[in-house]
Amino acid sequence: MSWFAWGDPARALELDPGLRDLVAQVLRARLQDMPPVPEELVELPPSRLGPRLRELFAGVVGPGHVSTEDPVRLRHCGGKSTPDLLLRRAGRADPAPDAVLYPADHGEVERLLAVCSEERVAVVPFGGGTSVVGGVTPLRGGFHAVVSLDLRRLDRLVSVDPLSSTAVLGAGVRGPHAEAMLAEHGLTLGHLPQSHEYATIGGYAATRSSGQASSGYGRFEDMVVSLRVATPRGTLEAGGPPASAAGPDLRRLLLGSEGTLGVITEVGVRVRRAPERVLDEAWSFPDFASGADALRVLAQSDARPTMARVLDESETFVGAAMGGREAVPGCQAVLGFEGAPAEVEARAAAVREAMAEAGGTPLGPEPVAHWRENRFSSPYLRDTLLSAGILAETLETAASWTGLLPLYTAVSEALTGALEGDEGGAVVMCHVSHTYPTGASLYFTVATAAGPDPVARWGRAKRAATDAIVANGGTITHHHAVGSDHRPWMAAEIGPLGGDVLRAVKAALDPEGVLNPGKLIPDSD
Amino acid sequence: MSWFAWGDPARALELDPGLRDLVAQVLRARLQDMPPVPEELVELPPSRLGPRLRELFAGVVGPGHVSTEDPVRLRHCGGKSTPDLLLRRAGRADPAPDAVLYPADHGEVERLLAVCSEERVAVVPFGGGTSVVGGVTPLRGGFHAVVSLDLRRLDRLVSVDPLSSTAVLGAGVRGPHAEAMLAEHGLTLGHLPQSHEYATIGGYAATRSSGQASSGYGRFEDMVVSLRVATPRGTLEAGGPPASAAGPDLRRLLLGSEGTLGVITEVGVRVRRAPERVLDEAWSFPDFASGADALRVLAQSDARPTMARVLDESETFVGAAMGGREAVPGCQAVLGFEGAPAEVEARAAAVREAMAEAGGTPLGPEPVAHWRENRFSSPYLRDTLLSAGILAETLETAASWTGLLPLYTAVSEALTGALEGDEGGAVVMCHVSHTYPTGASLYFTVATAAGPDPVARWGRAKRAATDAIVANGGTITHHHAVGSDHRPWMAAEIGPLGGDVLRAVKAALDPEGVLNPGKLIPDSD
Repeated sequence: MSWFAWGDPARALELDPGLRDLVAQVLRARLQDMPPVPEELVELPPSRLGPRLRELFAGVVGPGHVSTEDPVRLRHCGGKSTPDLLLRRAGRADPAPDAVLYPADHGEVERLLAVCSEERVAVVPFGGGTSVVGGVTPLRGGFHAVVSLDLRRLDRLVSVDPLSSTAVLGAGVRGPHAEAMLAEHGLTLGHLPQSHEYATIGGYAATRSSGQASSGYGRFEDMVVSLRVATPRGTLEAGGPPASAAGPDLRRLLLGSEGTLGVITEVGVRVRRAPERVLDEAWSFPDFASGADALRVLAQSDARPTMARVLDESETFVGAAMGGREAVPGCQAVLGFEGAPAEVEARAAAVREAMAEAGGTPLGPEPVAHWRENRFSSPYLRDTLLSAGILAETLETAASWTGLLPLYTAVSEALTGALEGDEGGAVVMCHVSHTYPTGASLYFTVATAAGPDPVARWGRAKRAATDAIVANGGTITHHHAVGSDHRPWMAAEIGPLGGDVLRAVKAALDPEGVLNPGKLIPDSD
Repeated sequence: MSWFAWGDPARALELDPGLRDLVAQVLRARLQDMPPVPEELVELPPSRLGPRLRELFAGVVGPGHVSTEDPVRLRHCGGKSTPDLLLRRAGRADPAPDAVLYPADHGEVERLLAVCSEERVAVVPFGGGTSVVGGVTPLRGGFHAVVSLDLRRLDRLVSVDPLSSTAVLGAGVRGPHAEAMLAEHGLTLGHLPQSHEYATIGGYAATRSSGQASSGYGRFEDMVVSLRVATPRGTLEAGGPPASAAGPDLRRLLLGSEGTLGVITEVGVRVRRAPERVLDEAWSFPDFASGADALRVLAQSDARPTMARVLDESETFVGAAMGGREAVPGCQAVLGFEGAPAEVEARAAAVREAMAEAGGTPLGPEPVAHWRENRFSSPYLRDTLLSAGILAETLETAASWTGLLPLYTAVSEALTGALEGDEGGAVVMCHVSHTYPTGASLYFTVATAAGPDPVARWGRAKRAATDAIVANGGTITHHHAVGSDHRPWMAAEIGPLGGDVLRAVKAALDPEGVLNPGKLIPDSD
């Protein structure tokens, strides 16, 4: 992974000159070259790890698995939000961890946490490093040192039980590696968020991730059968049986805990047989309202697609323009079906009928194929735009079906209002990509001129959008998690007693408060 | 509800003489008449509610909604487990609450909890009173008084949002009342546990209930969209949006909290359109293993029945005998399908194929119709057996598909081993009635001679069975909850840190510890 951009530097995209002109015109902005500074010019604060701490850590993981080297620390100094990248591209890499630790297994994680708690060292779990909400930023939180706990060595398929459709995976297993190991057993997890190529199983669990095929495979939290978690006070294991009424479901307290309550080291997941048949179908709708309502009908029926998304007018238009295709007026929906052949055909037929009845026009499989080809590459485009002086960022929420369109309007207006001005305009696009019987997600993509202070510029837009979300019944995050970026709104999201509950659980498991300080859990009033 | 038996006294069942003989023969037991003592002979400890407390409570709910009358206290002195009924039938009604309070709404519940916390009075939330694990037993827990908080007046359909498929129901709404109010909007909840006729929405949520059609409608916890909970420290609201990644799902911490963390006053639920078509089909399998495996295949496929259960050989035989029908050798499975006509037909066809391939023989719809007629009446039969000196009780667990049959054998042997002896034998029956992709529930029914001390006799069997469950990877409860009866095994179920977490949350929300003491949450070591 690149230190200043999304992923593999070899896959960086070029901006087509025609497209470049179009972007400038639409945004009413002058494009400018904004290349990242060379790595050697990045200012990295010196490591504060003294010899004693180094020895203590090395005593657990071995000296070869404690790094204080600058290139390593630079690659653990934050996640992949646009502000993260803007700062690093400008040569700013503060905060950076004082060291990066690479434990081999659960036992080493547990012993490291005991050392960190004893020595009062902040510890930030690090999986794929793909957080876009500041979740892996190594905040010191008042402690004298902060270490990044890189879980990449916890990369095994620990066990598999095909009869029970379950597997246990190490927290550091990356998405494609999980699928490759499961494929050897004819199985799949089916969890494919946009971050899939880099994100890890532990990160999926810690952030309540949701994949692009959540309609069929469910959210990641719904796939988790069991969790093994290391805390400064020892090991907590939760779950196992397929269902239980033995008190509150403690798995759900650890899912979404973002490294603040413990470090997830192993995840038991529900797996499925790899689908024999994949069937794609795109549809066109006159407008976003009718497209979203068609997805509502599907989500509330018993015959649902495995993957369903509908783009608003802007995103439909831009998507076609980016692909060099003629835009169909209105809004595009892309559906995918996976499973056994007969079952897929039956479901697709039922869905086809419902879509036509909801006012849709079939577009065939091609637009879905195009989407599949590019499903993991949007973050690369962001890097290209950043280099051209265009700020591109996303944010997301969810609401009930009744509240969805009012929320869409409110957030769109908040973003546009915050970004319109001397620096040009903004393009605000949106899609629905996760549907439930009771509501759906909204995923916004924004592009606008970077301007002289793009971090502050985006900050204003983000605050306006999140305030609009809170005021209009949306959740502050549907699948990006909270991290440091959404933390100011957590009190509004869960209320003062909700905050008390999280702080109480943290005090029970992490009495010194060393685990990922400054993330997720709001301060008490 | 009867004070010594399951439900409506008018629906008590008679034991057919032929059946009576059969029971005596199978159990190798002499039947004896064991009628309950007359209500006037029940010894009820005097109420300890002094005039000051009475005035404080009356100041919140009005004097007419504070009762210290014996018949009222008797009907709140416990749940409906067989030991509960045995004790009451013998005239023992200790512990009994010192008073029963009937708040009108959330605000009154919150104010009552503030009074209880301030005055250090234990408070036991009471919904339908159908707990079979001691969940509503008014334990004093070291406090000088204990009150039962009867939520029957919170019986409104608070709101309904048909577009979003959600409704908000008062915690005191009973199952049939919920369905009747939703039916006026063409909607259904579809949650039908055996306790349905008496149990309440709040109780479903507090105990992580699971209904007989959980294959199609899901567990109750999966239907819950939002919760409003009163605590001694104020109100906690959780959930709302269809999905979120804003930290741990706090709904799931309140679901299953059994009145120990707060009092659930309103529950937002997902609802569905009332099914247009119901299709039933029974199947026969050579043995329990093949029947359970057929249900596994269905649970792991995309075309599942709405309701699926398979009875073991004993339960198949006894069920036929009780119904006066000839027993088909082997094991019976009953399946139900609900939904839109075409969708139901398609699903049923796919399931039919899978069942035949799994070795099943179709038996037509009649056995399912018989099951539907009697689905809520088994508890009445227990009362009849108790009056004839036969102890009948149930217990349940769940495990992975791989672990299911070993667990079945272990629990069956534990029960038989604990009950075989001088008092005769035991009939142990079992069915699978809740299936998941990763495993299933096991529901055991036991009948045996009451003997001279039936409570102690059942206690030995229950301990042996629960020890076997813990030793064989089962959960200590799949849908009956923990209460006081399963509490001794909670430390084994969730581990020491899991206990710390629950105690920490309780301390945050209920600092004086007045909420349902002695239930669910294990003591620290």
